[in-house]
Amino acid sequence: MQNTVDMTNARESATIDVAAVRNFLTYDIDGLARWEQKQRIEKVLSSDPMFDKTNRPFITRTEAYSRGQRMTNRIYQLEQDLRWSKGDTVVAFSVLDDRLPSGLHSDAFEPVISGQGSPALLDKYAKLVVTRSILGCYLQTELGHGSNVAQLETTATFIPQTQEFEIHSPTLTSTKWWIGALGKTATHGVLQAKLILPGGKDMGPHLFFVPLRSLEDHKLLPGIIAGDIGPKALNGYVSVDNGYARFDRYRIPKENMLSKFAQVTEDGTYVKPPHSKLSYGGMMYIRSGMISHSGSAVARAITIAIRYATVRRQGERGPDGLEQQVITYPSVHGRLLPILSRAYVYVLLGRNMFKSFGTFSRQLASGNMSMLPEMHAITSGLKVLCTATIMDDIESARRSMGGHGYSAFAGVGKLYADYLPSVTFEGENFVLDKQVVRAALKASKDDTSSLSPFSRYLRLLHPGKEFPVPSWLDPTEVVLLLEWRAAVLVQDAAETDDDSDTSLTQRVSKAVAEAFVATQVLEMISTAQSSLRAEDALVLKGLFMLYLLSTVEGSLADFLTLNLIKGDQTKSLRKAISKICRELLPNAIGLTDAFGISDWELDSALGVYDGRVYEALWARVQTEPLNQTEVPEAYEESIKPILARGRQLAKL
Amino acid sequence: MQNTVDMTNARESATIDVAAVRNFLTYDIDGLARWEQKQRIEKVLSSDPMFDKTNRPFITRTEAYSRGQRMTNRIYQLEQDLRWSKGDTVVAFSVLDDRLPSGLHSDAFEPVISGQGSPALLDKYAKLVVTRSILGCYLQTELGHGSNVAQLETTATFIPQTQEFEIHSPTLTSTKWWIGALGKTATHGVLQAKLILPGGKDMGPHLFFVPLRSLEDHKLLPGIIAGDIGPKALNGYVSVDNGYARFDRYRIPKENMLSKFAQVTEDGTYVKPPHSKLSYGGMMYIRSGMISHSGSAVARAITIAIRYATVRRQGERGPDGLEQQVITYPSVHGRLLPILSRAYVYVLLGRNMFKSFGTFSRQLASGNMSMLPEMHAITSGLKVLCTATIMDDIESARRSMGGHGYSAFAGVGKLYADYLPSVTFEGENFVLDKQVVRAALKASKDDTSSLSPFSRYLRLLHPGKEFPVPSWLDPTEVVLLLEWRAAVLVQDAAETDDDSDTSLTQRVSKAVAEAFVATQVLEMISTAQSSLRAEDALVLKGLFMLYLLSTVEGSLADFLTLNLIKGDQTKSLRKAISKICRELLPNAIGLTDAFGISDWELDSALGVYDGRVYEALWARVQTEPLNQTEVPEAYEESIKPILARGRQLAKL
Repeated sequence: MQNTVDMTNARESATIDVAAVRNFLTYDIDGLARWEQKQRIEKVLSSDPMFDKTNRPFITRTEAYSRGQRMTNRIYQLEQDLRWSKGDTVVAFSVLDDRLPSGLHSDAFEPVISGQGSPALLDKYAKLVVTRSILGCYLQTELGHGSNVAQLETTATFIPQTQEFEIHSPTLTSTKWWIGALGKTATHGVLQAKLILPGGKDMGPHLFFVPLRSLEDHKLLPGIIAGDIGPKALNGYVSVDNGYARFDRYRIPKENMLSKFAQVTEDGTYVKPPHSKLSYGGMMYIRSGMISHSGSAVARAITIAIRYATVRRQGERGPDGLEQQVITYPSVHGRLLPILSRAYVYVLLGRNMFKSFGTFSRQLASGNMSMLPEMHAITSGLKVLCTATIMDDIESARRSMGGHGYSAFAGVGKLYADYLPSVTFEGENFVLDKQVVRAALKASKDDTSSLSPFSRYLRLLHPGKEFPVPSWLDPTEVVLLLEWRAAVLVQDAAETDDDSDTSLTQRVSKAVAEAFVATQVLEMISTAQSSLRAEDALVLKGLFMLYLLSTVEGSLADFLTLNLIKGDQTKSLRKAISKICRELLPNAIGLTDAFGISDWELDSALGVYDGRVYEALWARVQTEPLNQTEVPEAYEESIKPILARGRQLAKL
Repeated sequence: MQNTVDMTNARESATIDVAAVRNFLTYDIDGLARWEQKQRIEKVLSSDPMFDKTNRPFITRTEAYSRGQRMTNRIYQLEQDLRWSKGDTVVAFSVLDDRLPSGLHSDAFEPVISGQGSPALLDKYAKLVVTRSILGCYLQTELGHGSNVAQLETTATFIPQTQEFEIHSPTLTSTKWWIGALGKTATHGVLQAKLILPGGKDMGPHLFFVPLRSLEDHKLLPGIIAGDIGPKALNGYVSVDNGYARFDRYRIPKENMLSKFAQVTEDGTYVKPPHSKLSYGGMMYIRSGMISHSGSAVARAITIAIRYATVRRQGERGPDGLEQQVITYPSVHGRLLPILSRAYVYVLLGRNMFKSFGTFSRQLASGNMSMLPEMHAITSGLKVLCTATIMDDIESARRSMGGHGYSAFAGVGKLYADYLPSVTFEGENFVLDKQVVRAALKASKDDTSSLSPFSRYLRLLHPGKEFPVPSWLDPTEVVLLLEWRAAVLVQDAAETDDDSDTSLTQRVSKAVAEAFVATQVLEMISTAQSSLRAEDALVLKGLFMLYLLSTVEGSLADFLTLNLIKGDQTKSLRKAISKICRELLPNAIGLTDAFGISDWELDSALGVYDGRVYEALWARVQTEPLNQTEVPEAYEESIKPILARGRQLAKL
């Protein structure tokens, strides 16, 4: 079987120690190898019929929702039966390639309650939240407003007489919308609403703990209209019940205001929070996580694409009677290997961000706000960069597969559909870009000595810094070039006083984020050198170098416009990229194997580990419901009448 | 209602005569206004419950297939009952936003049979084909090979003893795959197979007419295994039964070879076709049609996005208490209006291509092959350009809508999913790029006098041509600049002898196609001037100018690298684009209305004509099956156990 031979040869051609690189990639933030843990959990799930994926492509959304709830229930049962740690459960959900509403409970609801609930509220509910005796969601976005929290319309009016808040949706557009797990699952929620004090004083958005459904029979509580907002584009997020809710003068007790920081006294006086931006932590946490998720999404897509390109043969037959392996074409590996490099960088960057976020949270908890502006800018800039880039990369990987990439069984379409909302949710990318630029412009006025790591490139704007002609062989110089672009573009933005350059904000934000990632990549190179065999570190250095060079290539128009590189360097840059690609080629399969993604996880007929793609595709096709009968139902109903009408006409 | 007010104001601010521009856009190739015809057909379908779309987002693929067949049957019945012309029926299918297998019968099967069947075959089958007494498909692609027809494995071996061909699938990878209408619908097919003559002589791919299913009971004929290949990515092409087929020494009579051009005599001697490329006509016809389709797809997406951006308000509230209309932000209209300009250009370009294709077919039918190489290069280059561009444009339009763009009810996701395969089918874009470049390199050696319209830019490579500094105000100069880029890049490609610049082929092909489109745009400007009021022609001139300038902006890296523009011209270019956008803004709604797409056609809650988007979204959400019961089925099965387990844990 040629496919198996090709795949085996590709594995044998690898010079890297795959297990070592895999451990390097999967170390968690405490330096422990996560691989063993992931293996253990993955084995449990993949052998449990509850997590079988065979029928998944054929079910309705209602069935997908029910299936998701069954899987959730099963994971919680396994957690209990197998005495899983909290971390084990997190891993269990992360190896599933289904988005589930339960994530909203653990990632949005629980941290906000525990971080911002008053002692009285925590006394009453903390245990219920942790044990999932109640199931939560986070109600922020409204039908009329998303990112712009200041314009939310839902009100929470304090009623001193009864010591209650009255939650109200005054307009159609104030309907809470898009809220994950709200549609059918959640029993409670954290709600963002304008706090209105006696006399009608609007104190802006605050958070409230709101019961939604009866714990007796799961019916909506009186005063609440809620439901599911319907299917998502491209059949994405199919198992999640994104929901809507309207409140009709719905009362909650005063203690339900999340008042650890801001409070209302019994007589309706407002007690200011120590810092107005305390509630930003949650959003930053979610954005930090998105970097890591984007890494694992693109890792899945590129594993599929590189495996398929390795066994797929097209073109003229050579002397051996075989056509050429598709991955050997420069037009193919020249597209795929830069994507592979980004997968590596984003996986490692995600880990770094978790680490930084840990430090940041500890500081925040102790009242130290100094990292706040920087963390906001970093998480915003990286969120935009990583989500926008991987959408392009997932789609490029899909297109590299030719026609079969459009089969649902290829598995890349589902990745695309499920990651797509990341470009507009948790801060719409265009909105976040503006915030990154605003922060950059502010930092550009700072002294060099006070520049944060995210703004260090701005040192270049200070006198005495001269721009060097970069070599495409030295990572330090390429990083410097990327920093120069960021610095000069920020200066350009500072000097531009009209809005006639409509893409400037996007280009500046991208430049700033890429300069930061570039400096992180330098660190990745040295971490690899200190923790891997020299030959493995060298291969990774090539991969990281490819990341840096293709980042430059991706924004050539800016580099050329700003005169940071000359026209004739375009050619040498592309030559350098092509050379690294050729050098990396023997390790392409090894480097994707090192992600350690199982066939069950990938769920792709074209990305199977053993390379037997056509057999896998054939097997999947036999499961199609239309193939369970030789003659479709539509025959009697429609096709036969069409043919009969035709025969009648033919006789006329 | 503010939305209605905003939409009404936007309509009133239009300076163009919408009906006149609409007629200009919808004239068909014979100069007759198609608008009336389309209106008439659209009214019939949109008021017929068979074409209702309410439940479409919620059904399974099997149901979608059945629904598609019911609609097909209904259209044929209407054709008979209302005495529709063939053209009326074409329009009926074109106003539907469902891809249906019937298109394969009319666009692929029927033309090939009628164009290449022998008189004997036509005698027997032509009437059955035309009346749809048999339903056809076109079996080319195999599991292992797509674009590369020369490597197809299916064989058709001539058996002189019985005067038959034996069709055989020797390997798994030779299975015919992706064939539209083959899965469950077609009764017959045109099959591409290697013709094997006595003695085992392989004559390469030829076409055969092959019965597939019994006309008695629709069962597969003995010797054929066939079925549906399963769901497509992103739930695209959901109603089409793309299928597979394997043949086990399946016999067909000799007359079933489509032998109008190539023939086999009774003793198995091959009679050469007068021209080996005769069968290319069909593929070119389909590619020509794709340009027009890409225009109408992007017209739909941009109509939705511009309407929603017109009524959506976000940002700080102004003195009138209202937030700003989203379309007034330069970052929004700076993205949307260039897309609008491409929609206009592609719609008109598609019409021009139909016209050229008509001339070409008449020549071909009379044995004149002179236009063949040029038509091949043009249709290839434009197919790649238009399909790749509109995928980006549809997705940009979707993103401009923020979070709601990810709702299936926004309607843009479905457009994306259904147009996506166009980048890989009917010639994979990367493969076609190579053919465009090959043709360009060949033409670059020709005399200026013999250059075809598609290669006219190559005149610039001849001595005496000097490159002018372009002004961003004069379309002729911008067109010349685009031609220069094509010429210099072709020269570059001719001088490049390694493959280290892996994207060169794509860039050259794009440059060549864009240079050709640019010259067509010059003609569009003058046609508009001669057929519209001066003020309308002026608005369209602005729109076409925007097309040209954003085309330059889209490939700045090449213009700068090739020194065709200088770094400081980047700024003036962007300023010029921004200025045109501002000038076009009052006509944005008018220009989208001029596409004349009805609410029923668009099927978008956010693109409704009256601007009442939130009401429309609310109404759609109530149709979601999950909302038909207050408590979901999953409650008893999964959610209740989760909560019960939680309560148990909470007590421990």
